[in-house]
Amino acid sequence: MATVKLLSDADADASPEVKAVFDDIRATRKSDFVNNFWRALGNDPATLKRVWEQLKAVMVVEGALDPLVREMIYIAVSTANGCSYCVHSHTATARAKGMTDAQHGELVAIIGLAGQTNHLATALQVPVDAQFLVTD
Amino acid sequence: MATVKLLSDADADASPEVKAVFDDIRATRKSDFVNNFWRALGNDPATLKRVWEQLKAVMVVEGALDPLVREMIYIAVSTANGCSYCVHSHTATARAKGMTDAQHGELVAIIGLAGQTNHLATALQVPVDAQFLVTD
Amino acid sequence: MATVKLLSDADADASPEVKAVFDDIRATRKSDFVNNFWRALGNDPATLKRVWEQLKAVMVVEGALDPLVREMIYIAVSTANGCSYCVHSHTATARAKGMTDAQHGELVAIIGLAGQTNHLATALQVPVDAQFLVTD
Amino acid sequence: MATVKLLSDADADASPEVKAVFDDIRATRKSDFVNNFWRALGNDPATLKRVWEQLKAVMVVEGALDPLVREMIYIAVSTANGCSYCVHSHTATARAKGMTDAQHGELVAIIGLAGQTNHLATALQVPVDAQFLVTD
Amino acid sequence: MATVKLLSDADADASPEVKAVFDDIRATRKSDFVNNFWRALGNDPATLKRVWEQLKAVMVVEGALDPLVREMIYIAVSTANGCSYCVHSHTATARAKGMTDAQHGELVAIIGLAGQTNHLATALQVPVDAQFLVTD
Amino acid sequence: MATVKLLSDADADASPEVKAVFDDIRATRKSDFVNNFWRALGNDPATLKRVWEQLKAVMVVEGALDPLVREMIYIAVSTANGCSYCVHSHTATARAKGMTDAQHGELVAIIGLAGQTNHLATALQVPVDAQFLVTD
Repeated sequence: MATVKLLSDADADASPEVKAVFDDIRATRKSDFVNNFWRALGNDPATLKRVWEQLKAVMVVEGALDPLVREMIYIAVSTANGCSYCVHSHTATARAKGMTDAQHGELVAIIGLAGQTNHLATALQVPVDAQFLVTD
Repeated sequence: MATVKLLSDADADASPEVKAVFDDIRATRKSDFVNNFWRALGNDPATLKRVWEQLKAVMVVEGALDPLVREMIYIAVSTANGCSYCVHSHTATARAKGMTDAQHGELVAIIGLAGQTNHLATALQVPVDAQFLVTD
Repeated sequence: MATVKLLSDADADASPEVKAVFDDIRATRKSDFVNNFWRALGNDPATLKRVWEQLKAVMVVEGALDPLVREMIYIAVSTANGCSYCVHSHTATARAKGMTDAQHGELVAIIGLAGQTNHLATALQVPVDAQFLVTD
Repeated sequence: MATVKLLSDADADASPEVKAVFDDIRATRKSDFVNNFWRALGNDPATLKRVWEQLKAVMVVEGALDPLVREMIYIAVSTANGCSYCVHSHTATARAKGMTDAQHGELVAIIGLAGQTNHLATALQVPVDAQFLVTD
Repeated sequence: MATVKLLSDADADASPEVKAVFDDIRATRKSDFVNNFWRALGNDPATLKRVWEQLKAVMVVEGALDPLVREMIYIAVSTANGCSYCVHSHTATARAKGMTDAQHGELVAIIGLAGQTNHLATALQVPVDAQFLVTD
Repeated sequence: MATVKLLSDADADASPEVKAVFDDIRATRKSDFVNNFWRALGNDPATLKRVWEQLKAVMVVEGALDPLVREMIYIAVSTANGCSYCVHSHTATARAKGMTDAQHGELVAIIGLAGQTNHLATALQVPVDAQFLVTD
């Protein structure tokens, strides 16, 4: 279905740059599973490495936001962008990080509500209130 | 700028249905400020009431998600939908609910990263891994 | 395929809130068929009820717009949002409400043309003419 | 504000192809007003002519859909695409064609509702019901 | 899966207008293959003809941009719009026109990067620098 | 207008990480001008550095695609995403890299056409032809 070949483990092993990233994915996640996104990106090893490094820097390191909250934000963006793959993969990840059914239900309700008010604000072309602007 | 008139307080007072919602907005938020979104929606009192009731049910009541987390999810959807008004209003609300600069920085970084990986997954048409599917 | 379980009729019967909404869907539509959207939403009974009540208020009641016109507007939004499920379900509903092939052809032609001029206006960042603004 | 110069009437008069289209716009609409969209497109006379001819073929000729219904569909697509210029211009045109405040209110309510259910269907990745598929 | 019937060659032969366009597609492309997009559009012969004529005028004629560059621009738009069919068909066409794996890799990397910076600019609501505006 | 403060040069000089990136932007571009995007991102120095490094890796290094072609792809994505800032900045950059009016006209025409066919394919839910799939 993809527009590129999905690399098998044998394909990955044949490229030192790809193998290094796949090994790091497995070590970071403590799991042998490498999902299709990385197998597709592996066709361009430089991009594979760049995107994985960035994902680690944004999603894996300690920070001001809880790891589960980060996943829910990711699901929200992916839904609004209509990215089916991303909605599936980050919903699965959020569940693996402890998202309960009640939390998922509220997340989806907020995404839906925002979809509605986004469209209403755009249809009415509501001007931004002065109170919401950041002044230098 | 809007495609409809923004109701003044005098306009709102002239319509019992609009006045009732504006009063409830002020009471719920403990603030006299009614932002332009509601002043635009007020042209259609039935929709004004329906959307406000829904916003209360999703964003105001106690639930499984922290109020600040809800606002950050709202910002994420609004950004991906390109709704300028909504990004401004919910960023202001999130700050009012205690969002720190560090949290805002991480939120924006995740939104940006998701924008990138969403586009990569779509450009490569990556098929969903069987592991991510919910089986009945 | 979904990120949540699709409720069977037996699942629905086990939850009074879900059963009440499913019963109302069947009564309102005079049909025993409950489509997957509601079976997915049923995982969160509060959202199921809220969205169904809203859909009835906007799409089912008598109003200033013809029911078929409402469905065509729904298809237009769903297409621009790239929501495959919604395009399918509302096209089927519009046909059930009497949409002819000629009407469908014109609807699709308008959606396509709007897609083009939307992109042209955005690429050229055309400023809004003063004549189009609503002045308070 | 635009990424190209907006052609003045003097600019248009200097190009026979542009002048011909502007003259036709004025004659077709029985108005001297040429809005900024065409003044921006005029920088590429071939595209100006192609898009105008297409707009006439889809929006101006007699057909199975009422002219006002066509404008409302246009507003719906433009809103979902977040095209501010297009929302403004087609809302003004719809009003000029007789759209009442009540009709506008219902249009906006449907656009908002579709925005919500589109996001819900995408977040839940609801599979299309077999009943909605067209079988050859 | 489509919302309309996909015309077979026999269906096309039964309509002189459809047959004429299909014949022109085959002659222009020097191939017997007519892809599903045109078989779906054929349900509305006027739109089929209009869109095909336009595609020829924009994508086939000699111009200032290389044919392969045009296809890559098409893929970029289709990805950002989340149009799965269009990503697939134009990626195949670009490959047929000589796109190498390295070029595809760079194209995808740019699309992904733009997805990220687009979201960052929108989340931060960055005002346009005066230097970027075209002044009449 | 932004949701964050735009860093002045004095602000940037006060942060070694921000100053280092701004210096590199100026050196790489051989210009003293630092546009607002980076002044907004500077509020989160880690993201500023990560995005700039990535932009250099994708847009500045030698590669299989011409620098001007890369900018045009960037404009295409930014238009489809409705990112006003990005359309402005990358159109200005493309002009600085030699984009002619004729090339810009063709770019915009392709973006518009793709917008149309994307919407047509989505409205009709055209299934992907087997010929377009990559088989492993």
